Amino acid sequence: MSTFGKLFRVTTYGESHCASVGAIVDGVPPGLPLVPQDVQTQLSRRRPGQSNLTTPRDEKDLVHIQSGIEHGVTLGTPIALLVKNEDQRPHDYSETDLYPRPSHADYTYLEKYGVKASSGGGRSSARETIGRVAAGAIAEKYLKLAYGVEIVAFVSSVGKIHLPAHVAPPSLAPLEGEEDNDDVQDALSEEFRKLIATITREEVDKHPTRCPHPETAERMTKRIIRAKEAQDSIGGTVTCVIRGVPSGLGEPVFDKFEAELAHAMLSIPATKAFEIGSGFRGTEVPGSRHNDAFVRRADGGLATKTNWSGGIQGGITNGEDIYFRIGFKSPATISQAQETAQYDGTAGSLAARGRHDPCVVPRAVPIVEAMAAIVVLDQLLIQNSRKTAASLLPPITTLPPTMVMPTKRKSTN
Amino acid sequence: MSTFGKLFRVTTYGESHCASVGAIVDGVPPGLPLVPQDVQTQLSRRRPGQSNLTTPRDEKDLVHIQSGIEHGVTLGTPIALLVKNEDQRPHDYSETDLYPRPSHADYTYLEKYGVKASSGGGRSSARETIGRVAAGAIAEKYLKLAYGVEIVAFVSSVGKIHLPAHVAPPSLAPLEGEEDNDDVQDALSEEFRKLIATITREEVDKHPTRCPHPETAERMTKRIIRAKEAQDSIGGTVTCVIRGVPSGLGEPVFDKFEAELAHAMLSIPATKAFEIGSGFRGTEVPGSRHNDAFVRRADGGLATKTNWSGGIQGGITNGEDIYFRIGFKSPATISQAQETAQYDGTAGSLAARGRHDPCVVPRAVPIVEAMAAIVVLDQLLIQNSRKTAASLLPPITTLPPTMVMPTKRKSTN
Amino acid sequence: MSTFGKLFRVTTYGESHCASVGAIVDGVPPGLPLVPQDVQTQLSRRRPGQSNLTTPRDEKDLVHIQSGIEHGVTLGTPIALLVKNEDQRPHDYSETDLYPRPSHADYTYLEKYGVKASSGGGRSSARETIGRVAAGAIAEKYLKLAYGVEIVAFVSSVGKIHLPAHVAPPSLAPLEGEEDNDDVQDALSEEFRKLIATITREEVDKHPTRCPHPETAERMTKRIIRAKEAQDSIGGTVTCVIRGVPSGLGEPVFDKFEAELAHAMLSIPATKAFEIGSGFRGTEVPGSRHNDAFVRRADGGLATKTNWSGGIQGGITNGEDIYFRIGFKSPATISQAQETAQYDGTAGSLAARGRHDPCVVPRAVPIVEAMAAIVVLDQLLIQNSRKTAASLLPPITTLPPTMVMPTKRKSTN
Amino acid sequence: MSTFGKLFRVTTYGESHCASVGAIVDGVPPGLPLVPQDVQTQLSRRRPGQSNLTTPRDEKDLVHIQSGIEHGVTLGTPIALLVKNEDQRPHDYSETDLYPRPSHADYTYLEKYGVKASSGGGRSSARETIGRVAAGAIAEKYLKLAYGVEIVAFVSSVGKIHLPAHVAPPSLAPLEGEEDNDDVQDALSEEFRKLIATITREEVDKHPTRCPHPETAERMTKRIIRAKEAQDSIGGTVTCVIRGVPSGLGEPVFDKFEAELAHAMLSIPATKAFEIGSGFRGTEVPGSRHNDAFVRRADGGLATKTNWSGGIQGGITNGEDIYFRIGFKSPATISQAQETAQYDGTAGSLAARGRHDPCVVPRAVPIVEAMAAIVVLDQLLIQNSRKTAASLLPPITTLPPTMVMPTKRKSTN
Repeated sequence: MSTFGKLFRVTTYGESHCASVGAIVDGVPPGLPLVPQDVQTQLSRRRPGQSNLTTPRDEKDLVHIQSGIEHGVTLGTPIALLVKNEDQRPHDYSETDLYPRPSHADYTYLEKYGVKASSGGGRSSARETIGRVAAGAIAEKYLKLAYGVEIVAFVSSVGKIHLPAHVAPPSLAPLEGEEDNDDVQDALSEEFRKLIATITREEVDKHPTRCPHPETAERMTKRIIRAKEAQDSIGGTVTCVIRGVPSGLGEPVFDKFEAELAHAMLSIPATKAFEIGSGFRGTEVPGSRHNDAFVRRADGGLATKTNWSGGIQGGITNGEDIYFRIGFKSPATISQAQETAQYDGTAGSLAARGRHDPCVVPRAVPIVEAMAAIVVLDQLLIQNSRKTAASLLPPITTLPPTMVMPTKRKSTN
Repeated sequence: MSTFGKLFRVTTYGESHCASVGAIVDGVPPGLPLVPQDVQTQLSRRRPGQSNLTTPRDEKDLVHIQSGIEHGVTLGTPIALLVKNEDQRPHDYSETDLYPRPSHADYTYLEKYGVKASSGGGRSSARETIGRVAAGAIAEKYLKLAYGVEIVAFVSSVGKIHLPAHVAPPSLAPLEGEEDNDDVQDALSEEFRKLIATITREEVDKHPTRCPHPETAERMTKRIIRAKEAQDSIGGTVTCVIRGVPSGLGEPVFDKFEAELAHAMLSIPATKAFEIGSGFRGTEVPGSRHNDAFVRRADGGLATKTNWSGGIQGGITNGEDIYFRIGFKSPATISQAQETAQYDGTAGSLAARGRHDPCVVPRAVPIVEAMAAIVVLDQLLIQNSRKTAASLLPPITTLPPTMVMPTKRKSTN
Repeated sequence: MSTFGKLFRVTTYGESHCASVGAIVDGVPPGLPLVPQDVQTQLSRRRPGQSNLTTPRDEKDLVHIQSGIEHGVTLGTPIALLVKNEDQRPHDYSETDLYPRPSHADYTYLEKYGVKASSGGGRSSARETIGRVAAGAIAEKYLKLAYGVEIVAFVSSVGKIHLPAHVAPPSLAPLEGEEDNDDVQDALSEEFRKLIATITREEVDKHPTRCPHPETAERMTKRIIRAKEAQDSIGGTVTCVIRGVPSGLGEPVFDKFEAELAHAMLSIPATKAFEIGSGFRGTEVPGSRHNDAFVRRADGGLATKTNWSGGIQGGITNGEDIYFRIGFKSPATISQAQETAQYDGTAGSLAARGRHDPCVVPRAVPIVEAMAAIVVLDQLLIQNSRKTAASLLPPITTLPPTMVMPTKRKSTN
Repeated sequence: MSTFGKLFRVTTYGESHCASVGAIVDGVPPGLPLVPQDVQTQLSRRRPGQSNLTTPRDEKDLVHIQSGIEHGVTLGTPIALLVKNEDQRPHDYSETDLYPRPSHADYTYLEKYGVKASSGGGRSSARETIGRVAAGAIAEKYLKLAYGVEIVAFVSSVGKIHLPAHVAPPSLAPLEGEEDNDDVQDALSEEFRKLIATITREEVDKHPTRCPHPETAERMTKRIIRAKEAQDSIGGTVTCVIRGVPSGLGEPVFDKFEAELAHAMLSIPATKAFEIGSGFRGTEVPGSRHNDAFVRRADGGLATKTNWSGGIQGGITNGEDIYFRIGFKSPATISQAQETAQYDGTAGSLAARGRHDPCVVPRAVPIVEAMAAIVVLDQLLIQNSRKTAASLLPPITTLPPTMVMPTKRKSTN
């Protein structure tokens, strides 16, 4: 339904032409410094009209915080946020309304509810994501301040134009050789690991495509403009890294960390695919090469030499960088004529009116970051609860040492 | 945690060496004919020792139903099921216990809980999936009987050996041409649509790999045996189709049908990737070719000409075949020596003891089917509730006809 | 947390001095005619300043619907509602802020969150209930239209002044005689059953106390005024009846109908007690007299001769009138001086500033009705889902007839 | 449904004549020493056949732990527990099966599910509570070990025989005087506060009625035997105290501590009423006398002078003893003949077969304790999560000191 999360809970509302869109964010840690600008920054990265690559609708998307904060500090009570819709009139009727847009939500919303918003797909509107981005910004503020967590997403492909293999996530780095050749040394590139270890939002925002590889970004721009000029659209992928997440997050067995992430990402409009770590590529690499061997960390703990796992093993974070990739299909709403059928089955031709994004991935970047932050904070709160509970128990004395963390064992002094 | 679903709820328990593994299945529709064999069939497809491709452990995995059924009919109350573990002794200590297995859950379980089962990864054990398969079999029985829903999964790749492009899901069918070439006619193959429209479990089970393309299946067998002989492992992908699902399932916005599916699938051990419909390939195809145009169905309703969407639009099922693909990594436990570190950071070499699956995808097939059935039934129950509620309201008279389903409008007679 | 319900879900936000208070209502049946006045009516029954018995603060409490409705019809998507706070400035500091108000939430909010709103108890403010009342009004509109359900609450006691025994709920009708005397004929009065079978909100609102027995209402008025003049406060009880609820609602075992009702009612500020049906009195009546014998209904179904059960048996509604009683303590905030301690433990005397309700029960009436409506609709949606699912299965043939409803059995024709 | 709790989650299964009854307990803190006897002790206090006051069925009710524990230590993974049913054959048909037992769940189960267990009320069977008691024992073990929490329930009334006013909870201590007389000094008796501050399970178990006042216990015994001899039944109340709960538990606004407690208690079979603290009596006492004034504790914190609140203010625990009272109706199944109707409406006379408890309250004592423990641990885990999260934030500098706990403020050194 419209709520995500167990302890950090986000409930969104709103569609294209109603009074406002927004969210109630429940379970925010109390005592967090928070001002509207913390939220506005990400909303502005999401809003339309940022460049000639996105829809020319220029909505201000100013956030209005309703509750849960006094004197710039969170109270721990629900934070309600809203952004007014500039155009609050129901959509005017036109002949295009006789047609469900192919691959859009018009038809399925009507099948589901028996009624639908005049604007068509109702809650499938991209404006619904405003509430998510706002909630994610709050989660991020906490994660940054309390744990130093950093979340950065960027565009890794537009159409067939991908980041070059040597800086790409494993699934974009084709394995060399025949099916009997297990040579995979290039697939998990060192340059990619370095990229995700260091990339910042500032670097991502340097180019309107939000692709951090300038030459590729230029080719992407051309591809998007080609789609726009053809009154067509094109898809792409977003890659995201989460740095600084403590080990131990993720709830076996159904709420594994990657399962929650996948749920969150596939709930974003237009998404069709999700990979964590080596993803589909990892299915092709023998275990002996795919396994992430352990090494001692400087602080005495364990790190992994490689990171095919994407920071998650057995559904639980291991402290390494978490990276994943999401596929966004080509937007369904296009202005060129399509041969299709009306709701009543009458065949005809539909050319959608209005202004549309030819490619959503640049604007999807802050949405991906927001959903990632929500998942991390929710999982963190659950694991914190367990850790605190366990810390109050006496040391474990009856288990063999290999079954117990050193800090949980009985002191031998 | 260990519960999945909102109205059809599955809670599993158990690890490798405890007394039993099993599940409580709550929310089963009352009045469903159900005998143990309904469950046993899928458990036997999941169990080890079925062929020389899987682990030679030969566990009987007989299900014991505890409650919720009398005289072969469900009462609507929780059905508890359990399968005894043959080997209930905690694992004997050995030197290998000093090492967390690379890319396994040993390390992260210890980080999360501070203690871990002697067997290592605890609930990350494949035996945990027994409860899922049992619960899924109940869901399937209902779906088949009440809606004629059919769910069939099969192996679509092992390592680099994929189904041939002409019968493969879109993401395994490479787009031809350069980045400026939008020619995609082969990507959504008619043969693939025919395959998923007709394939049965009997056909899938004809070959121990559970790949329905005999020539490819043979190559997969060799690949798995090669891994086995090398004391190594290899991954693969499973593709699944769900036929006969009514339109209207999936709960905007966070519980979109594909988001729930992704959550369910990524909760299966060893999964790394998920695609619905055209998946990652769909990101490369322009909207004008990717959109699924509508056509009138024989019964007057709407169907789609193509099915890039995989049966879901706007997070809601549209009545077409739902198909998706899941990536399983190469199993982490291998017998060949690996250079890694002990829990305390000491570098060393680990060669895992015991018998392990060199490739999990053949046995993953019934697990994927089970999780799919659980998702469909849970979503169906939620949507049924809404539909029934809406059906009791008077016809809608104040909305323009394009916003209302014909059956919800005021009769004009 | 701040969300109630499983399929009909209400999430509220807001405290006394923030920008607004409100709610997101998710899971509303689509196609329901709904205009702001449907909500406003109950909000106005809740608002302060209605009579000289309540706080003189005169807040307009106008509802602003943000989403989920077009042309006066619900879309099935979340309905967000808000009511602006007239006084949005944080509370000014005064010496009284050094004191946690005895029996108020000031102290526990600070203990829980480490920070608190300047106004004191934050979300324990009565203004939080605005979101509930608005959500309840939506639920009621549906229940009335689709099922003819009627919900009416009224004041059954103020302080020691109770409805007379002959029209009171069982727990207010003392049992006659000694402990060995089982004579209970008066305890479940026919007049009370008639009262709850016929009472309307119009009748309840005839007197500002919302007690439907005029002579008692007058005595209650005097009691409240006495408390007001003494700068003191007084508690009371609200009795509520729900008429027209279908049989079969309530989810064994943890979400029994009365358990959900109790949860809902005890979540209302200032509540301390809950009884369903015969309540505490029912513990004193022998089973032979307390049991509700069955009789044939005119339509062939079963009714009960008496209704000690309050319409619920085994946690499931039986189709009879559901009645229950809730105890509200005397409001904690009073203007007369109290000897107590400051947050730092310093002993002193506190006289609370501002204007306060000397007795909350008259204004609690619409809040009780709202929470009742929310519970009924949520349970109804869950049971509808099961019923629809079961209705699609073939008739049951293998069970003895006494285990199966006639409509589920195989036709013998 | 059959699951209770958010982070500490209990899912039960089973009815009277199936193979076993039991539960899966998820979210158990890892590292807790736990052996079957920890659970068995409370199961044995619950089982039938303990004295001539309860049903003569003598079931052993031995617990079998299936998972989640190795070497006597919890792993943090789900603990499954089961108790075999001695009599696993479905109930034999008899003429009594033509009748729904008055005030039992036979009728409503059939209305809800369309089928029912041969034994009648299915999950409304008292055997369902075995899973709860087992789960509660685990929660208790943790609470005792980590926090020193103690939970003791006892019988406070049977029929009209109540604990004497001077040791009774407030609602059993009648207020003196006329309606204009506010003299309430006796209502919250010092002896009662002392009783709940010190009472132990050993003392409670000294008498088979589990009433800690010997003279009253004797009268209760006679009352129960009188009911038994008359083939009738009688109800009663259980009072419970929870000592040692930290302040800050309870989740505003819908999951207030008392709302969760009420939900938990009203989910126990045969319950009809719940009071926290002063309960219904508290509605009659003016605020000036009902308010619990604060006093400085020895450790510098705050305590309350009186405890009308029952340890909860604003839905949040304040560190004082939590006490509450639950009403259990007279059992519905009695052997004396009752004039009632068959399922098909035919009037007739029913005399229930079999052996039944004439009064359930003595055996209800461990069930109440179990549900209380489950609620406390679940709320504790949620609050721990928040506290840990807040503790990682920097000190609060922008709020006035009266809004911030001293430990959260910026150090002034």
